Amino acid sequence: MNPDPRKYLIYAATNFYQKGWMVGTAGNLSARLPDNSFWITASGRPKERLTEQDFVRVDIDGQVLKKPNPNFRPSAETSIHQVIYQCFPEAKACYHVHSIEGNLVSNFTEGNGLLLPSLEMLKGFGIWEENPWVEMPLFENHLEVNKIADEISDRFQESPAKIPALLIRNHGVTVWANSPESAYHYIELVEYIFRYMMAARQISF
Amino acid sequence: MNPDPRKYLIYAATNFYQKGWMVGTAGNLSARLPDNSFWITASGRPKERLTEQDFVRVDIDGQVLKKPNPNFRPSAETSIHQVIYQCFPEAKACYHVHSIEGNLVSNFTEGNGLLLPSLEMLKGFGIWEENPWVEMPLFENHLEVNKIADEISDRFQESPAKIPALLIRNHGVTVWANSPESAYHYIELVEYIFRYMMAARQISF
Amino acid sequence: MNPDPRKYLIYAATNFYQKGWMVGTAGNLSARLPDNSFWITASGRPKERLTEQDFVRVDIDGQVLKKPNPNFRPSAETSIHQVIYQCFPEAKACYHVHSIEGNLVSNFTEGNGLLLPSLEMLKGFGIWEENPWVEMPLFENHLEVNKIADEISDRFQESPAKIPALLIRNHGVTVWANSPESAYHYIELVEYIFRYMMAARQISF
Amino acid sequence: MNPDPRKYLIYAATNFYQKGWMVGTAGNLSARLPDNSFWITASGRPKERLTEQDFVRVDIDGQVLKKPNPNFRPSAETSIHQVIYQCFPEAKACYHVHSIEGNLVSNFTEGNGLLLPSLEMLKGFGIWEENPWVEMPLFENHLEVNKIADEISDRFQESPAKIPALLIRNHGVTVWANSPESAYHYIELVEYIFRYMMAARQISF
Repeated sequence: MNPDPRKYLIYAATNFYQKGWMVGTAGNLSARLPDNSFWITASGRPKERLTEQDFVRVDIDGQVLKKPNPNFRPSAETSIHQVIYQCFPEAKACYHVHSIEGNLVSNFTEGNGLLLPSLEMLKGFGIWEENPWVEMPLFENHLEVNKIADEISDRFQESPAKIPALLIRNHGVTVWANSPESAYHYIELVEYIFRYMMAARQISF
Repeated sequence: MNPDPRKYLIYAATNFYQKGWMVGTAGNLSARLPDNSFWITASGRPKERLTEQDFVRVDIDGQVLKKPNPNFRPSAETSIHQVIYQCFPEAKACYHVHSIEGNLVSNFTEGNGLLLPSLEMLKGFGIWEENPWVEMPLFENHLEVNKIADEISDRFQESPAKIPALLIRNHGVTVWANSPESAYHYIELVEYIFRYMMAARQISF
Repeated sequence: MNPDPRKYLIYAATNFYQKGWMVGTAGNLSARLPDNSFWITASGRPKERLTEQDFVRVDIDGQVLKKPNPNFRPSAETSIHQVIYQCFPEAKACYHVHSIEGNLVSNFTEGNGLLLPSLEMLKGFGIWEENPWVEMPLFENHLEVNKIADEISDRFQESPAKIPALLIRNHGVTVWANSPESAYHYIELVEYIFRYMMAARQISF
Repeated sequence: MNPDPRKYLIYAATNFYQKGWMVGTAGNLSARLPDNSFWITASGRPKERLTEQDFVRVDIDGQVLKKPNPNFRPSAETSIHQVIYQCFPEAKACYHVHSIEGNLVSNFTEGNGLLLPSLEMLKGFGIWEENPWVEMPLFENHLEVNKIADEISDRFQESPAKIPALLIRNHGVTVWANSPESAYHYIELVEYIFRYMMAARQISF
């Protein structure tokens, strides 16, 4: 039993911040509770020193259920978390970060999927194949976040992703998993792959 | 009420040092008090382990009001902080750091403004536009700091900056904000953008 | 006397994780005991916060002797550790990590050995020569780990390595040493050399 | 009065290690005492966790005066520290580190001096000029360390360096200063400049 996942989310935010993926208050993390509501980081809070007051609890439709600090609003990108939890009932955590590498590799293709290199690290997503072909779903960025959320919902209802991750162009990556701990490692895996892709490009591989 | 901002400035300096932006004693941080005077880092002090003794309090004209350590002088670049506080009455903190990336991107143009890429991260400056056009004011470096300060003052009296940041060529960036905490995140945002610009150039984007 | 090497392995894993070489639970570390059995990290455990429960003790033939946590299995790559301990009786520790640079430099040649640059740092492997010629043995990656292990065993029985390190293509490096402390420094040395090779390639040296 | 400088040297080694400049036990640090002897790191000790036992005290001619741990020998490069202290009577500390960038930039020229970019950061060496011309003395690496030391001694007796730093090709940088604290910042300054030179080369500046 883990009734309050905020402690782990604070741990994750601190580490992601230190890696440069949540600087300037960027990004947002959430974890779903048994009643289908979820705790999500409040808008504009410093990810390097979150406290339990820096979260808002919302239901799956985005209605605020609890605000430890009445001045805070849920993350501006809450609607993306909602569609992830709606599309993937087994998802218990959803993390979104803004890395430099994620921004850059999102421009390696003009299509709607980013082909990943066939690295040993893909086993971390449960892909045990020799030279696997894996594309990460890629979405356009819109000023209106709900429009991004709608496009995610539409695409995943037609064809679910092979890996639990999606990328928004010039914006950042989102992952989901059946526990906050697994989502942490998925973020590490995708960011490892993005850094690999950048380094490979730098040496013209 | 936050009568003494030095604790936060020490926190900020430690973190900026660890990111490589204040090495070799480089850079200077200040915060304005209600009486319009400001605490600024003393010249030549190690940014990785500042104490409250490592600051000098000066008035808006640069006159020293208080020196916890009588041997210390205010930062050699105090005059730049003065003009920022004079030009922007709402500014309560002003930070200047020396990153490698800030030095390099300052040479990406020969003009007096650096065009920034239209990244999601610009929302951190309150810019909510689709594909925003944002130029960071760029100034020449001079051995005589007062000459830099005069050029900043002259330009900002004519046309204030769209974002609270300016860059000095081959030298480093300066930001200002209405609180020490916001100035911290602005430094992170501009340095994120500089690293992005460097990485994009490395892969010939 | 150091009857339980797990404390040091935890220290090593934490540091390797922080350097980005064991993210997403990747990699595995082991240390051999006087009875020829060895402690090895359990499969899929987070390397950033291992405890003594996160290891399994196996004999040199890979049979499990002790499982502090009955749910854990030994690392999926235990067979590689076995062949290292079989081929090198003096080896007391064996570490395998997944760095981005190790993956990339493994593609600098199509052959079965990677020529290292003649850096001062090679002295750390006990090589005291002017401009030494050192090749790191390079193996193909296979989905079936036992096949990798067999190829390592076959090659080393014919010709032992000049340095105690081997590289698996698109996967990562493995080192061994006569103490856990030396193996730690060997990992640092090979990763230093990989980063050097990447940086040299970036500037077209 | 600071009768035992080892505490500060331990602090410096820990930080340099974390920046990647003293990995795999590489590098050596010393500080001179009033009697002209100096404490220097013992050979092969891990720089990430030195203790006061990991130093040896030698006189200016290299004779061992004190060994807290009788098994340890002074650094293999003690002779370089000796010539620095002999050539520069005001030098109280001498540090030598092995960075990747220092190795690479040492090959940017075939001559015996490395021209540094005219960055604001050069003020940290007390150089207050507009666009200063500063060359760092560059020496060839030899397997026999005494030969390097002799060449340093010969050159500096003829023409002292403009900045308190020298570079050995494919090996690393050495700095000296009138206090352990200043030597620490000099290492930071030279490594900053090396990283700048590498980054500039990567983008073909």
